[in-house]
Amino acid sequence: MTSDKPNPTACVIIIGNEILSGRTQDVNLAHLGTELNEAGVTLAEARVIPDVPATIIETVNTCRANFDYVFTTGGIGPTHDDITSECIAEAFGVEYELNETAHAILQAHYKPGELNEARLRMARMPAGAELVENPISQAPGYRIGNVYVMAGVPVIMRAMFDSIRHHLAGGSPVLSRTVGGTIGEGKLADKLGEIQKRHPEVDVGSYPFFRGGTYGTSLVMRSRDEEELDAAAEEVRELIRSFGEEPYEGEIKLKDQA
Amino acid sequence: MTSDKPNPTACVIIIGNEILSGRTQDVNLAHLGTELNEAGVTLAEARVIPDVPATIIETVNTCRANFDYVFTTGGIGPTHDDITSECIAEAFGVEYELNETAHAILQAHYKPGELNEARLRMARMPAGAELVENPISQAPGYRIGNVYVMAGVPVIMRAMFDSIRHHLAGGSPVLSRTVGGTIGEGKLADKLGEIQKRHPEVDVGSYPFFRGGTYGTSLVMRSRDEEELDAAAEEVRELIRSFGEEPYEGEIKLKDQA
Repeated sequence: MTSDKPNPTACVIIIGNEILSGRTQDVNLAHLGTELNEAGVTLAEARVIPDVPATIIETVNTCRANFDYVFTTGGIGPTHDDITSECIAEAFGVEYELNETAHAILQAHYKPGELNEARLRMARMPAGAELVENPISQAPGYRIGNVYVMAGVPVIMRAMFDSIRHHLAGGSPVLSRTVGGTIGEGKLADKLGEIQKRHPEVDVGSYPFFRGGTYGTSLVMRSRDEEELDAAAEEVRELIRSFGEEPYEGEIKLKDQA
Repeated sequence: MTSDKPNPTACVIIIGNEILSGRTQDVNLAHLGTELNEAGVTLAEARVIPDVPATIIETVNTCRANFDYVFTTGGIGPTHDDITSECIAEAFGVEYELNETAHAILQAHYKPGELNEARLRMARMPAGAELVENPISQAPGYRIGNVYVMAGVPVIMRAMFDSIRHHLAGGSPVLSRTVGGTIGEGKLADKLGEIQKRHPEVDVGSYPFFRGGTYGTSLVMRSRDEEELDAAAEEVRELIRSFGEEPYEGEIKLKDQA
């Protein structure tokens, strides 16, 4: 059994024109979703927004009021289109200023003369920001209030998240079981709905797939309660066996969305 | 020269627990971003939300008021977790009912006896919905007001979008030029900011990359005005040449986000 207290919630804000234009395939959301769930934090929403100050400020303020944690990615580099930090400062109503610790990190990193005005932007942050380490390229992220501000480059974002994940006050991790068969979800749907009703503590998801000319369905059960989870998974296995097929176990690697 | 009238805006709403849990890597957003830009529609925001009725209803209503077009993906299949259509009906304050045309399509598609209650859900829609063809698996999407409701499975979503894109009232397509070099963006940033200031009609994006131990920067110029675009691109090429390097042209395929 697990605590009845719901897990804390999080919202991810992906900042960058390049994601909305289709130039860049975001991969940070799936990573953060997986990691947050393991940390016992429910990723409840994500927003992808352009490099537009009013939009960034409004979105940050809405989301930090509605969720326990907010994680932003993107827009903290040295160029003119990196405007996240100014906007975060304005959203919090604090000064946008040179952070002395971040300044010292950059001074130690760059050769004399290389720390130009543009790069110095990476040490400018909202007043009161608490640094998040960047072991890849040094320029740090930071936390202010319940908002964590991280880089958009995936390798840096992941390293930054690794350094903060153990500080998050998470609840119980969400466990999952995946079971599937080469049966169309339309055939499983009625019985599956009954299984969901019998196990309200378990979130039963049905994800159809097509591969190599055949189709089938992956059923993903997710819950913080392992006993209920295993009971629901066993009923789903029985359902698949009732079609004369032995269910497969575990995740199929697909790029499909249900 | 292009029209001064801004392009219509769009918001994509990605509906599905599986995206937020990290189980499924969304690939629909990047596709829609690219396609919408080519159609002269600005993808201005995207939201990823869970299969929670109140969240779906509120998000749809907020977004359809704020953007010219809304595109939803996910949650229109036959299983209990496919609740998008009920929620869209409630958001619009109309009946959720059997669509006769969709019903006929499914009757023609399934063998006698196969169109069970669960599959019949795929013909239930908000009253007044106008069907969007699904050449892959027949069960249609639909439009109601300025909201297009599409499947989440990428191959189906793409086919549905192909059948509606020529109905969108788009403005001028956004053109782009990509130029890059193996120079850190911190070295380019100051001059790049000046180029951006000289060409306010052009959106100059700077995207650092790491590959095979080397690093560099891709500069992406985007504009509806081709003359301005080419002028800005040439200045960026000159900037790269000033570091003793011949710029490369075109997009580097990277999964990095700036």
